[in-house]
Amino acid sequence: MIYDLIIIGGGPAGISAAIYAARQRLRILLITKDFTGQLGRKAIAIENYLGFEKVSGLNLIKKFENHLKRYKVEILRDKVRKVRKTKEIFFVLTANKKTFQAKTVIVASGADPRPLEVPGEKEFIGRGVSYCTSCDAPVFKDKAVAVIGGGNSAFEAAIALNKWAKKIYILEYGDKVVADKENQEAVKKIKKIELILRANLKEIKGDKFVKSVIYQDRKTKTDKTLSVEGVFVEIGSQPATSFVKGMVDFNGRDEIIVNAKTGETSTPGLFTAGDVDDNPYKQIVVAAGEGAKAALSVFKYLQK
Amino acid sequence: MIYDLIIIGGGPAGISAAIYAARQRLRILLITKDFTGQLGRKAIAIENYLGFEKVSGLNLIKKFENHLKRYKVEILRDKVRKVRKTKEIFFVLTANKKTFQAKTVIVASGADPRPLEVPGEKEFIGRGVSYCTSCDAPVFKDKAVAVIGGGNSAFEAAIALNKWAKKIYILEYGDKVVADKENQEAVKKIKKIELILRANLKEIKGDKFVKSVIYQDRKTKTDKTLSVEGVFVEIGSQPATSFVKGMVDFNGRDEIIVNAKTGETSTPGLFTAGDVDDNPYKQIVVAAGEGAKAALSVFKYLQK
Repeated sequence: MIYDLIIIGGGPAGISAAIYAARQRLRILLITKDFTGQLGRKAIAIENYLGFEKVSGLNLIKKFENHLKRYKVEILRDKVRKVRKTKEIFFVLTANKKTFQAKTVIVASGADPRPLEVPGEKEFIGRGVSYCTSCDAPVFKDKAVAVIGGGNSAFEAAIALNKWAKKIYILEYGDKVVADKENQEAVKKIKKIELILRANLKEIKGDKFVKSVIYQDRKTKTDKTLSVEGVFVEIGSQPATSFVKGMVDFNGRDEIIVNAKTGETSTPGLFTAGDVDDNPYKQIVVAAGEGAKAALSVFKYLQK
Repeated sequence: MIYDLIIIGGGPAGISAAIYAARQRLRILLITKDFTGQLGRKAIAIENYLGFEKVSGLNLIKKFENHLKRYKVEILRDKVRKVRKTKEIFFVLTANKKTFQAKTVIVASGADPRPLEVPGEKEFIGRGVSYCTSCDAPVFKDKAVAVIGGGNSAFEAAIALNKWAKKIYILEYGDKVVADKENQEAVKKIKKIELILRANLKEIKGDKFVKSVIYQDRKTKTDKTLSVEGVFVEIGSQPATSFVKGMVDFNGRDEIIVNAKTGETSTPGLFTAGDVDDNPYKQIVVAAGEGAKAALSVFKYLQK
């Protein structure tokens, strides 16, 4: 059986694409490990997805999933390992060693958290080091924690941790932060959050669990130690694109190069949407829009 | 007083841009005649805006407006007549003869219905000829009507008219329709809707009110008359861009040429989003995404 379209990814881009494609009565398979992804991991209040004044990540993705369920879309809970193209047909291989065929593919696999790559990080995953504030914040009740990063996700993590932790450090490498003003103001109002700029994180230390972090003050060139039991890594993400390596053009950041008007890539029949592509703004509402574009382009492509 | 940003338009693109810009604490003026626009005029069920399984156009734009109200955005109910740029400052002139200054402008003025340009059309506006199904459908209770066009908006207009009219013709110029399959299936199920392909509308006739339409059957080259009391024009839209003529690059369809990744135009400081630009897919969710991009680009531009 050959599908009209295989969508890889169950985030805002993939779901929006599925809804648009289903309305064209295409035969669709959507492959995703889960419907949580980045949105679920960051279950902090989302206030900038047009139409929802304030909603948690988990509730928003649940609404998206319910929207999807109104349509006839086959869903497979699996992880894609490899995509290849032979003549006009795409072959999609999954972790469970299944192969599916389709005339078109939309890659909407989003992004994974970017690791710090410092000593101690890997060793203490699940023992103090976390990439998911909403999952792990309650563990750090009345404890001191460090959030690494200076963007919106770092600031939102710190704000969410306010409910639990007794002290929160935000460590940012640069001279200034890039979080939006709204988040900066919110953080300023919380006394127990301390923002440390020019902090180059060097090591995470501990025994069974994290005990401290060591960073270099980039101005004074001196090493400093903070006693913390939790380290939340929020330094951005890396596109989940390894399964299409070699079959489509990428930029230097491993993002798929996209025609932002249509979702087309350098490979005919292969489309992309959301955080995997080289659109500079990684936003939920942007991903949803890109998903719609990609699906409409798939429909046009199939009509030829 | 010089605003950081003037947003022209109060549809999904303009409102999404305003929310994103307000979160950056910019000083913003949003100029719009109303918050209805295309979305309000087509108050038919919207089923493809991610997160809302089924919602009327009016309810959706109301939700968008409420979302906007959470932020500090100055709103002016007016119509923009002209934008010009002197050195680094934009001057925005309105129909009420006011002038405002800003460092940046986002043009998100959407589109107006495209007229048929046949004899009788102008004469019978408000007397049988309508560009707004949701406004005017009830007037045609138990009457025969014609919908002109073969896209989604035409099909959705016909479906909405089903509640009121006794007979509905859909007249499409081409050999096939471009409405999505979902809408095509829905129309097929309604017995009183009759789809006429290859119909070249030539004239709208009547006395005080519309009495009939004359079209040429493009296959047989014969003229035919349909007795109808209403004509709903749904042949697409034209971008509302006259106020920026001469100061930015356009394509052949009067759409502003946009960098779809950033919302930038050929004029530094002038950004665009939504149905006014040359993005091929005119969709609510796409417009909302473009608005977010444009606002984030404005913020970057102002930081320089």
